[in-house]
Amino acid sequence: MPGRVEEFNDFRSRMNERILRADNRAVKRFFGVDTLTYEPGALDAKTKEMLGLVASMVLRCDDCVAYHVEQCKKAGVTDEEMFDIFSVALVVGGSIVIPHLRRAVAFLDEWNALQQPAP
Amino acid sequence: MPGRVEEFNDFRSRMNERILRADNRAVKRFFGVDTLTYEPGALDAKTKEMLGLVASMVLRCDDCVAYHVEQCKKAGVTDEEMFDIFSVALVVGGSIVIPHLRRAVAFLDEWNALQQPAP
Amino acid sequence: MPGRVEEFNDFRSRMNERILRADNRAVKRFFGVDTLTYEPGALDAKTKEMLGLVASMVLRCDDCVAYHVEQCKKAGVTDEEMFDIFSVALVVGGSIVIPHLRRAVAFLDEWNALQQPAP
Amino acid sequence: MPGRVEEFNDFRSRMNERILRADNRAVKRFFGVDTLTYEPGALDAKTKEMLGLVASMVLRCDDCVAYHVEQCKKAGVTDEEMFDIFSVALVVGGSIVIPHLRRAVAFLDEWNALQQPAP
Amino acid sequence: MPGRVEEFNDFRSRMNERILRADNRAVKRFFGVDTLTYEPGALDAKTKEMLGLVASMVLRCDDCVAYHVEQCKKAGVTDEEMFDIFSVALVVGGSIVIPHLRRAVAFLDEWNALQQPAP
Amino acid sequence: MPGRVEEFNDFRSRMNERILRADNRAVKRFFGVDTLTYEPGALDAKTKEMLGLVASMVLRCDDCVAYHVEQCKKAGVTDEEMFDIFSVALVVGGSIVIPHLRRAVAFLDEWNALQQPAP
Repeated sequence: MPGRVEEFNDFRSRMNERILRADNRAVKRFFGVDTLTYEPGALDAKTKEMLGLVASMVLRCDDCVAYHVEQCKKAGVTDEEMFDIFSVALVVGGSIVIPHLRRAVAFLDEWNALQQPAP
Repeated sequence: MPGRVEEFNDFRSRMNERILRADNRAVKRFFGVDTLTYEPGALDAKTKEMLGLVASMVLRCDDCVAYHVEQCKKAGVTDEEMFDIFSVALVVGGSIVIPHLRRAVAFLDEWNALQQPAP
Repeated sequence: MPGRVEEFNDFRSRMNERILRADNRAVKRFFGVDTLTYEPGALDAKTKEMLGLVASMVLRCDDCVAYHVEQCKKAGVTDEEMFDIFSVALVVGGSIVIPHLRRAVAFLDEWNALQQPAP
Repeated sequence: MPGRVEEFNDFRSRMNERILRADNRAVKRFFGVDTLTYEPGALDAKTKEMLGLVASMVLRCDDCVAYHVEQCKKAGVTDEEMFDIFSVALVVGGSIVIPHLRRAVAFLDEWNALQQPAP
Repeated sequence: MPGRVEEFNDFRSRMNERILRADNRAVKRFFGVDTLTYEPGALDAKTKEMLGLVASMVLRCDDCVAYHVEQCKKAGVTDEEMFDIFSVALVVGGSIVIPHLRRAVAFLDEWNALQQPAP
Repeated sequence: MPGRVEEFNDFRSRMNERILRADNRAVKRFFGVDTLTYEPGALDAKTKEMLGLVASMVLRCDDCVAYHVEQCKKAGVTDEEMFDIFSVALVVGGSIVIPHLRRAVAFLDEWNALQQPAP
């Protein structure tokens, strides 16, 4: 899946704009609550992103997983911590999580590679 | 739901013993992996229990929720942090999570009440 | 399940109040969006309640089903229309919906009986 | 859960009759297809019941699980084979299946006890 | 996703034929019930298609969503009504519905574009 | 989907290796239990693979379905038996299983074609 990080972020931004432009009140307010939920509160942003990631994995939503993997990395989650999150998702959600785990790890590897300085 | 904490823990222990006694290799090893998953690793036990709780809520498993609420409290999760976990579950999983949230909060209140010293 | 309508509504109201009192911003705003969603818009309230009912049935949430059955009846959905909703839920969601259908119909029958004038 | 086998079968029969009496064509025909599916075909009835059981477990439908446990026992599935089915459900569906496994085993034990001749 | 409407409909027709040719009685009768369910009854065809759409969205089945978006448009559902359906799906099903919402809106836009007369 | 069998197996093997190399204890032991589960026990390997297939279909995991279709064929499941498994999945899981059924049959046809000797 070469270029998945970029392609995913592009489609995501473009469609989010299109959806908000439709100006449905409930949809717009839902998007607002979604953003608010991950702001620091009693729990810090890093912990909340980890919660969002594990929830996305057990519900087996590849795009949500990709989004939260990226947010987790930006919030400082190490790859070792990432695999601890993956292990909880796997055990709670079962072997049907495995294909999503494969794609999550492929996305993580691509994201990590993009952070390397060009030679 | 008076007495739910005790009744739940009693049925849970009794049936777990019954299941392990059946001596099915894959079932027994699955129970082993389940226990192992929540042991401290790159992430500490408190964080892992919070991950287990949010995963259980979005998958809408009342008994799993009750179990992880109890484990979270034992690991030192405050009630304010608990509601932050609930908020992620609610937004990721949607309004169908609400009935499980009601039962989670009722269970939490009962658990908290049981920690009070007798007068 | 005698008295299920009343018992359900009582627990529901009591816990909703308890949850909102906890004053978690994201949780409170989610409850707000939830209410807003069923207000008349491009679609009328009756149609929206029918949508809420079929969504609750395929996601197999008994409490959500009970709530939307009551809202549908209040919005004027006939019993024949109710079974058309049930048929879509059954075919889309499969035979695992059947136990929830049984409880939905039992709830509907109890609700209908409560509307009869005392002799 | 004493008396769960009998209580479950009674509510099930009574509501199925009530639902079919409502005379919704799609609902009635769905019930017909449901029955047809478990009749012997390329696979025998025992195998089909085992498939129905594992599908019900990973979808976490307690009533469906109870129904298929009973059908499996009537079709000659041994308790050892039953735990092999349970192990597949557990590994595919994850630890959220465990509470349903506990109730399935409790139901199985009650069903087995009912088959013993009175002393 | 250029050409998704056509590609989707082509694969759908071809495989449906292939599946029915296999001549499995239960599978064939299930397809029959599926068709019957959306025929006008106590509820008209437009309402039933809207029910099918919201059910498909909360169960997060992209192909089912695409199919029902097309059926809804053919039955006269306006884009404003479509977003009301989307809002119910989003609130009931949570933020994991969002990626499916993005693809539903992209499909809707492509479908609408195909209805424009060539210049 | 030309070449899906090969592409799927290649990505699957490559990512499984990558995941195991990460050396997370719980993840590795979960993979071990997963393998163990399908070894012959009270039920033979063919029956267990059929159970894995129907569980994967109702949970709507395309990659899991493809994997178990291949394992079932290797274990001697005939195409007629395969459609009996599909019928149980369809009736238990509902019409949202249909898109996964289409892809399962397309995968099965491709797999069968690959077994033909070159002319």
